[in-house]
Amino acid sequence: MSLKLFGYWRSSAAWRVRWALNLKGLSCVHHFVNLKTGEQKSPAHLKVNPSGRVPMLLLEDGTRLNQSLGIISYLDSQVFKKATKIIPEDPLNRARAFELWEVIAADTHPLQNISVISRYSDDPQKRVEWSAFYIQRGLSVFDETLTRVALAKDFSLGNSPSLPDLALIPQIYNALRFGLDVQGTFPRLWKIYQNALQTEECLVASPEKQQDAVEGV
Amino acid sequence: MSLKLFGYWRSSAAWRVRWALNLKGLSCVHHFVNLKTGEQKSPAHLKVNPSGRVPMLLLEDGTRLNQSLGIISYLDSQVFKKATKIIPEDPLNRARAFELWEVIAADTHPLQNISVISRYSDDPQKRVEWSAFYIQRGLSVFDETLTRVALAKDFSLGNSPSLPDLALIPQIYNALRFGLDVQGTFPRLWKIYQNALQTEECLVASPEKQQDAVEGV
Repeated sequence: MSLKLFGYWRSSAAWRVRWALNLKGLSCVHHFVNLKTGEQKSPAHLKVNPSGRVPMLLLEDGTRLNQSLGIISYLDSQVFKKATKIIPEDPLNRARAFELWEVIAADTHPLQNISVISRYSDDPQKRVEWSAFYIQRGLSVFDETLTRVALAKDFSLGNSPSLPDLALIPQIYNALRFGLDVQGTFPRLWKIYQNALQTEECLVASPEKQQDAVEGV
Repeated sequence: MSLKLFGYWRSSAAWRVRWALNLKGLSCVHHFVNLKTGEQKSPAHLKVNPSGRVPMLLLEDGTRLNQSLGIISYLDSQVFKKATKIIPEDPLNRARAFELWEVIAADTHPLQNISVISRYSDDPQKRVEWSAFYIQRGLSVFDETLTRVALAKDFSLGNSPSLPDLALIPQIYNALRFGLDVQGTFPRLWKIYQNALQTEECLVASPEKQQDAVEGV
C-alpha cells in the first residue's frame, strides 16, 4: 500500500500517527508542512489537502483520512507486516484505551495547542501558566486512571505500547517544553516515556528525528 | 445488567452516553450530580466516584468507566436487546466515525467547556465570543468532512444515528445556547439535529428531559 502522510515535526498528533505506522511495519512518503510559516493555508497545499490540517493520510486510491484517532483506527484494522494491535480487542481493555486516549487527546492536548494559547493571551508567561495548568491536570488524571485500571507495566496497558501511549508520549514531550517536572511529579509516566523512547518505533517517529526538524527552537 | 450512570442534565458527554444506552435498549439507574453547586467534589460523591467526573458508568461488578468514548465503546461491544451498532464495523467507516467524533469531542467541546471559559475570562461577553468562535469552527469542519465523506443522509453516516451524531447533537444544543445561527449557517447539520430530536432515543436523553433539569437557566 502506497501511503503519504502530511505532517509537521512538532505536531503531537502527527507523532502519534508516525509511531502507529512504525508499529504496523508500514513505510510511507512524508510530506512535511511548515505550520510555522502557515504553509498549510497556501493554495498549493490546499489543493492536495483541502482540510489544511495535519496529520492527513493519503491512501493509494486517493482517500483522505484526518484526525489521528481515525487514521490509527484505519491502520490498525489492516493486516500488515506486523501483527501488533494498537487498539485492544478485548471490550473492556478497548474501553480503557479510549478512556485514557481521551484524557489526553480531548481534555488536555487541544487546550495547550499553539493556536488556542495564542488566542488566549499575547503574554508569553500567561500562555505558559495556562498550558502548564492543563497539562498538569491531564497527566494527573491519566496517572490516577492507570492506578484504577491496574494494567500498567512497561506501558499504560501492559508490556507493549498501545493507543494510550501514542497520546501520552507526545504530551509528555510538550510538558517538558512547558517546564513541568514530569520525572518528579509523575514517576510512573516518566518511566513509560523512557521505555517508549527506547523503542525504535517511537524514537524514529519523534520530532527531532524528522527531516523538517529545526534546531534550537 | 445493572448499570448506574453518574451524570448531569446539561453535560454534553452525559447526553452522548444516555443516548447510547437508549440506542442499545438498556435501562440504568441515573444518579444526577449537581455540577453547578460543586457536588462532584463533595466527600460523599468522591466515595462512589473518585474521579469526580461525569459521565461515569458503574457496572454491576463495581467496574467504573469514565470518558464518553470509552463508555460508548464498551456498551457497543455488548449484545443487548437492540442490535444497533453505534460504532461502524467497516474499517473505513469506523475511521470516518472517529474522525468526525474527534472534530467535536477533541477539537471543539473541551474549548467551550464551562471550566475552561471561566479560566479564560471573567467577562461574559468575551466568554461568549471565545465559545462561539470554536463552536463555529468545529461545526464548519464537521460539515466539510461530511461533504468529503459523502455518506450523510438523515444522519452523519447514513440513515441511522452513529457515533458522530452522538457528539454532534449536544454540540448543536450548546451552539444554540451561545447564540449561533445553526439553521442558517449549517442547514445540513440543522436537519440532522431535527431528525435526531424526532427519535425517542435521543429526545428522552436530552437535557430538558432529565430529572435534575432546572427551568429558565
